[in-house]
Amino acid sequence: MTAPATTQLLDLAAAGLRVLDLGRPLTVGMPQSPNHPAYWHAHPRRHGDLVRADGGSAANDMISMGTHVGTHVDALVHVSQDGLLYGGLDAGAALQGGRYVELGVQTVEPMVRRGVLLDVPGTLGVGRLEPGQEITVADLEATLERQGTTIGAGDVVLVRSGWGQHFDAGDRELFMGQSSGVPGVGEAGATWLAGRGVHAAGADTIAFERLAPGAGHGLLPAHRVLLVEHGIYIIETMDLEELAREEVHEFLFVLSPLPLVGATGSPARPLAVVGR
Amino acid sequence: MTAPATTQLLDLAAAGLRVLDLGRPLTVGMPQSPNHPAYWHAHPRRHGDLVRADGGSAANDMISMGTHVGTHVDALVHVSQDGLLYGGLDAGAALQGGRYVELGVQTVEPMVRRGVLLDVPGTLGVGRLEPGQEITVADLEATLERQGTTIGAGDVVLVRSGWGQHFDAGDRELFMGQSSGVPGVGEAGATWLAGRGVHAAGADTIAFERLAPGAGHGLLPAHRVLLVEHGIYIIETMDLEELAREEVHEFLFVLSPLPLVGATGSPARPLAVVGR
Amino acid sequence: MTAPATTQLLDLAAAGLRVLDLGRPLTVGMPQSPNHPAYWHAHPRRHGDLVRADGGSAANDMISMGTHVGTHVDALVHVSQDGLLYGGLDAGAALQGGRYVELGVQTVEPMVRRGVLLDVPGTLGVGRLEPGQEITVADLEATLERQGTTIGAGDVVLVRSGWGQHFDAGDRELFMGQSSGVPGVGEAGATWLAGRGVHAAGADTIAFERLAPGAGHGLLPAHRVLLVEHGIYIIETMDLEELAREEVHEFLFVLSPLPLVGATGSPARPLAVVGR
Amino acid sequence: MTAPATTQLLDLAAAGLRVLDLGRPLTVGMPQSPNHPAYWHAHPRRHGDLVRADGGSAANDMISMGTHVGTHVDALVHVSQDGLLYGGLDAGAALQGGRYVELGVQTVEPMVRRGVLLDVPGTLGVGRLEPGQEITVADLEATLERQGTTIGAGDVVLVRSGWGQHFDAGDRELFMGQSSGVPGVGEAGATWLAGRGVHAAGADTIAFERLAPGAGHGLLPAHRVLLVEHGIYIIETMDLEELAREEVHEFLFVLSPLPLVGATGSPARPLAVVGR
Repeated sequence: MTAPATTQLLDLAAAGLRVLDLGRPLTVGMPQSPNHPAYWHAHPRRHGDLVRADGGSAANDMISMGTHVGTHVDALVHVSQDGLLYGGLDAGAALQGGRYVELGVQTVEPMVRRGVLLDVPGTLGVGRLEPGQEITVADLEATLERQGTTIGAGDVVLVRSGWGQHFDAGDRELFMGQSSGVPGVGEAGATWLAGRGVHAAGADTIAFERLAPGAGHGLLPAHRVLLVEHGIYIIETMDLEELAREEVHEFLFVLSPLPLVGATGSPARPLAVVGR
Repeated sequence: MTAPATTQLLDLAAAGLRVLDLGRPLTVGMPQSPNHPAYWHAHPRRHGDLVRADGGSAANDMISMGTHVGTHVDALVHVSQDGLLYGGLDAGAALQGGRYVELGVQTVEPMVRRGVLLDVPGTLGVGRLEPGQEITVADLEATLERQGTTIGAGDVVLVRSGWGQHFDAGDRELFMGQSSGVPGVGEAGATWLAGRGVHAAGADTIAFERLAPGAGHGLLPAHRVLLVEHGIYIIETMDLEELAREEVHEFLFVLSPLPLVGATGSPARPLAVVGR
Repeated sequence: MTAPATTQLLDLAAAGLRVLDLGRPLTVGMPQSPNHPAYWHAHPRRHGDLVRADGGSAANDMISMGTHVGTHVDALVHVSQDGLLYGGLDAGAALQGGRYVELGVQTVEPMVRRGVLLDVPGTLGVGRLEPGQEITVADLEATLERQGTTIGAGDVVLVRSGWGQHFDAGDRELFMGQSSGVPGVGEAGATWLAGRGVHAAGADTIAFERLAPGAGHGLLPAHRVLLVEHGIYIIETMDLEELAREEVHEFLFVLSPLPLVGATGSPARPLAVVGR
Repeated sequence: MTAPATTQLLDLAAAGLRVLDLGRPLTVGMPQSPNHPAYWHAHPRRHGDLVRADGGSAANDMISMGTHVGTHVDALVHVSQDGLLYGGLDAGAALQGGRYVELGVQTVEPMVRRGVLLDVPGTLGVGRLEPGQEITVADLEATLERQGTTIGAGDVVLVRSGWGQHFDAGDRELFMGQSSGVPGVGEAGATWLAGRGVHAAGADTIAFERLAPGAGHGLLPAHRVLLVEHGIYIIETMDLEELAREEVHEFLFVLSPLPLVGATGSPARPLAVVGR
């Protein structure tokens, strides 16, 4: 009943796999885009509020949030251009009964695929990139070269800028970068990624792509290239620091979005799985 | 830089892994426990609401929900007994600044482990168990025997009752089973699972364990045994029908809970990964 | 500076006004329409969670809800007919940037007006009307006659059925009446109210108008007559028992909706103010 | 049946009362304290999403928010000092089953009382007070003197600083004043108000009282004096500009908080009612 490949997989697990956590903790007040509902959490019940006759008690939670907050994946329906979605679908017609039936996040298959880290600051010999710095195609190619990594069709490619250090440091305004700008790929880098046939592209920043200083979060050409023109998912606000520190440049990438029917994205906790 | 085990893992992925989705779609109105905040979703912005000068538009989401709704994992802090949590921790002291700092869901490591399905209806020769039917230790052992499956320490064990068919069928009241009761393991079955050293236990029902007809969701001895006495996570409202149909009895189990800091559980979309 | 009428008003207040509360308490689990987001409440902070150096502490709240839950007022934009709102406005065009700019609840002026109770059960000599019973025009006229009350243009008219007793009694399913039906005016009664030029019409039921047994909340002709055809606001889930018990048939009616910009309704706590 | 005072009240209404709106519109992104859940709104259903066979359609809303956002009233339970609430009640014991049963906002009676405006900038001959400026007892007394107004026991007193102009102007950061500070009464002014036996005190600022520049919203002595020591309600983020412009210094004040059972405050839309 158990396929040989399953046995191999379980043998690897038995030997000990290492799971690197690429998700950011969700806390009230964390940096997130003001375009999306703020993450809030409270306990309707805490222990002791209601104790049953047998001495048992349960605590629970109430959450309110957007789906593009914390570490998350963008469904293809998230962005439209000139009224059209990926594949030329009409953005209005994709909506039925108030839900995005077409290209909503419920259509994003869980990802269990080869993942690649492109550690750009490592290539450029800096701790992290400058605010508003565009990661160029030359940077991306130099990084592949330096790391000795290849990108295959269907891979998930994670582009590190080092900007995630501001999330770690609790530097909320700076991480968001509305006035400072944020480093990342621009239209050219997105086109280069699309040319490699990647399945999804991720970054350690709030909006994946380069944000020019003072420009806010409004103009997003890389989103158009990836989501609308090529059907490539985008993953944002990832923690890529450990991968870089440990020089883990390829791994099994796992991301299982919540199937929020009709939604445009989902919070997620992506993983990089490697052998020990 | 890439460990040999990583290469093996990626070779398996390249050869084609099969990913079975064990999560239920989240929709407004889906069956969930009335003890937890109802799942609601709306779009603050739809395409066309706000079109930028360049023709681009983004749609987004607003979510409100409990953490024990849809397919989800219970953190150890979810349940206390006589004021104490797992490990004898004081339930009051576990809370700091309004968050469960100890044993909250942010402490649940992502799971990438061997998973085992116990297809009890398959053993008993029925499509699904009866409302309120207790899955006995004999049932569990007979299922292991019939399937030729073993359980190892650290495994995640999923106990199928067939009751998830009511979720599929949209039979909300019946799935919830507040009046009818719901099949599942009782205290004895939970003790048996704990004796095998499992890491987590899951089911295709709303509360994991057997609910007696007419008893509601109040009395949960298996929760006490697993969460409080043994530190074993519980996963609820899973979709185990495909695993059973395809007789996939062991697999790589993947569950990556959202690190909702201070919370008692997390929605999740667990996966069963097998070779083709 | 103080107008004579203001002085008179303040003299009346000084002499002692009586304020009857027509709003229902909002509690988690209260009866509400399943078409609207459920009311949930939790405390992000309780006293003691975070005590300042000076010994002070603040507790606060987190609320999630629809606007048509609890006692509430319907804005005119709530209902459309054949794509049109009150005044022939196009329902699609009323929405700008994802908000109902036209006829949204922010356009509902606070009401400080003459209010009239029509105590129909008092007229019919019953404690409350039957499930699904239609309040006829004859019932309304007989009630005016019995009470010796008149209705003037601009008044707010509250039609009591006695059904609110089920809310008081915590009889959730019965108050909602999805299977049983709910008493109230039908299309004829709504037309009669509109003919009297009322400003708003209220009731002690979940949907203001008569709901036929087994018909759910889907077909609402009185809503069409009042909101769409005549621009008359509707107030639902009121507590009219005390007014009836004390035979207060006319009063100063006060309702101050929250100016939720772009929304279709607002929770409110209406008042009936009378002299002592 | 109708008391003579009721008839007088209705005669005044018939002659035409003027209702001044003291509430601020609630919009996504409005200035509010970051200590409280952000106000968010979306439409689960818009017109056209679901049209019934008869051509009717309903739009509705989903709201998530704190209770101390927008114009709102603080219940007495909102603040404790050294573990005690107003009247020496233990703050922990006030909570039952996760709700503030004692002194929660459900215990705040709707207010229909004499209201008084203290237009401090009018007295000081400025358009609005300076950031962080404390309104002194001398300022309050000079304002009473200048206006020829008296304060009686049980009145609601509204202290205008002019700071609400920043809300009007959409100057979010400045209105919040976390770095700049905000003008208002301090401990002395609060003690003076308490000495006059007022029922409630309101202001046009985010936290009612003076906030020192750079001090954030943490230290609130006037809250302690009013809520904890004297049982006087506080109303925040009011619009007092029209009252000042029109020199309306006394009025019938109406505030009907939502009876959110167990909560510490409620959004509200207070009114000032005067004769024409």
